[in-house]
Amino acid sequence: MGEITTLEWKEGELVLLDQTILPNKVAYVVCKNLEDVYRAIQTMIVRGAPAIGVAAGYGMVLAAHAYKGEKGDSFFRYMKEKGEYLKSSRPTAINLMWAVDRILEKMEKRRELSLEDLKREVESEAVAIHEEDKLTNRSIGEKLLRLLKDGDTVLTHCNAGGLATSGYGTALSVFYMAQEKGMKIKAFADETRPRLQGANLTAFELAQHGVDVTLICDNMAALVMSQGKIDAVIVGCDRVASNGDTANKVGTYGVSVLAKYFHIPFYVASPISTIDMECAAGSEIPIEERSWDEVLCIHGEYIAPREIKTYNPSFDVTPAENITAIVTEKGIVYPPFCDNLKMIMGK
Amino acid sequence: MGEITTLEWKEGELVLLDQTILPNKVAYVVCKNLEDVYRAIQTMIVRGAPAIGVAAGYGMVLAAHAYKGEKGDSFFRYMKEKGEYLKSSRPTAINLMWAVDRILEKMEKRRELSLEDLKREVESEAVAIHEEDKLTNRSIGEKLLRLLKDGDTVLTHCNAGGLATSGYGTALSVFYMAQEKGMKIKAFADETRPRLQGANLTAFELAQHGVDVTLICDNMAALVMSQGKIDAVIVGCDRVASNGDTANKVGTYGVSVLAKYFHIPFYVASPISTIDMECAAGSEIPIEERSWDEVLCIHGEYIAPREIKTYNPSFDVTPAENITAIVTEKGIVYPPFCDNLKMIMGK
Repeated sequence: MGEITTLEWKEGELVLLDQTILPNKVAYVVCKNLEDVYRAIQTMIVRGAPAIGVAAGYGMVLAAHAYKGEKGDSFFRYMKEKGEYLKSSRPTAINLMWAVDRILEKMEKRRELSLEDLKREVESEAVAIHEEDKLTNRSIGEKLLRLLKDGDTVLTHCNAGGLATSGYGTALSVFYMAQEKGMKIKAFADETRPRLQGANLTAFELAQHGVDVTLICDNMAALVMSQGKIDAVIVGCDRVASNGDTANKVGTYGVSVLAKYFHIPFYVASPISTIDMECAAGSEIPIEERSWDEVLCIHGEYIAPREIKTYNPSFDVTPAENITAIVTEKGIVYPPFCDNLKMIMGK
Repeated sequence: MGEITTLEWKEGELVLLDQTILPNKVAYVVCKNLEDVYRAIQTMIVRGAPAIGVAAGYGMVLAAHAYKGEKGDSFFRYMKEKGEYLKSSRPTAINLMWAVDRILEKMEKRRELSLEDLKREVESEAVAIHEEDKLTNRSIGEKLLRLLKDGDTVLTHCNAGGLATSGYGTALSVFYMAQEKGMKIKAFADETRPRLQGANLTAFELAQHGVDVTLICDNMAALVMSQGKIDAVIVGCDRVASNGDTANKVGTYGVSVLAKYFHIPFYVASPISTIDMECAAGSEIPIEERSWDEVLCIHGEYIAPREIKTYNPSFDVTPAENITAIVTEKGIVYPPFCDNLKMIMGK
């Protein structure tokens, strides 16, 4: 992400770019303990499934460092409790659960270590999650690029970019990999109400990197597609079920229906860590509902009378039938997803 | 519209509710001459195709009153010029052209009258347009209601309500007619970016009249439909081509694609005056593009860096194939629209 760093582990503290005040201000929030990380995830100071996963790893490190009790079982129980607490900060993004479980499993495997060595093990696992995320992004970007041709224009929704990860991003990595390879891929960004991550984050991040980006309101996607302006849709995801159903930011489902109607390929950029093989179908994915004021207030002003009812689901589930391919760091997965996801996950 | 009057002709002046500052402030703008009316239409102080038509009628009255020249040809030339000027205020809404032409045709028919009598004729024609609009709304509402059953929930986009007309509205008239008849029809309102008329106007207007309304962001429509919450979509329109293609607020096209995907009927509420038999297909309808700042600024704050490119078409065209029926004051028109619109228009 060039000069702006989404997430940094620095002298035993987690430094997060505050994504709630972009693009108007660039400021950082320092998390010194697990509670700070919990709040940062819940209030979306850090957001995007992969970045939440990396932050959660460091949250577990902060929890471990804060432990002052005995070694042995009580430390393991303590860490498990803290992990459950952390998982409750946002229910939909699977990477949060994945990162916490990965740390706990690593601890379990090294049960024989001393308390201090175990704490060091937790930290090195969190750093590994962070480093792997960067490589994953590059690999996804390369594979996405194979699906496009020079000069193509890609529509994206929400932000699955460098701000949502620790590297190039998942969906947006394609634009950065194109730049590395001297190809030109243009972008249309849905603004992505209610929190406007497409405007605040995606348009901001792409423009900062010199990508040709056009910002539209969410409801303009059909018109833009009908005009032949879009060659492919690429989105990130918060959880992929084993049948290919994909939870992502609310509005993704609608874009997938439009893409199908206009015969435009619809690609999901998904790290392996975002695929939940325990989840049989999208109907099992918990959908977070957020506060009414995200819909009713913009920049502190009401857009409708305060007493109006609102509905504010943060995610929706795109059915597998609307997805052309799921692009992971291990390869491009085509339908039938039930079989092909199993194969790539080695399960 | 109860206590709030969208549009009133009062002592030789046109009094307009200022719809750009709703719902937070209720204030009126007085138009004393044609230029005032032009500005009010262009800046969307008055909006909604039928209301624009009524305002345009009174704009022509103000132009006539301001005329100080000779009677005869020069008055006719003057009125024609003023009419062309007024038509240029917004290109998409056909009612604007329709109202201006109706006034000019009436003048033509009564060419023999004195200058003062001709001016009176212009005024009585404008009043007639206004009065007919109120009756039209009730009639459309009654017909829409026949397509629903008690307890149904209707999704609507933008504002085709009392604020868009001089009466009950076109699309929203169904909710008010239901109330008159003791039926309960619930509403979901798309917020309708960039100008948020669904939030500012529709949610405001429906709640004020005691209609059960839920406000959603535009991109939530697919999820809400997939949950079985929507029984029908009803929208207004700015121009209907003779083949049934319908221009309406941007985002309508996308909603029509979703409705088709989820097998939900999609109805267009259209006064006869909004049907343009001279227009063969939607591709001939001029689509107004409005300023970039409507997309990039909300409540005076930027949502993305100022230098970001935006695209801001104000309308889109829903293809006839996505429309279940077009509901006019003269009757419900089903496909094939080419034949059936011709029949209802008596052409």
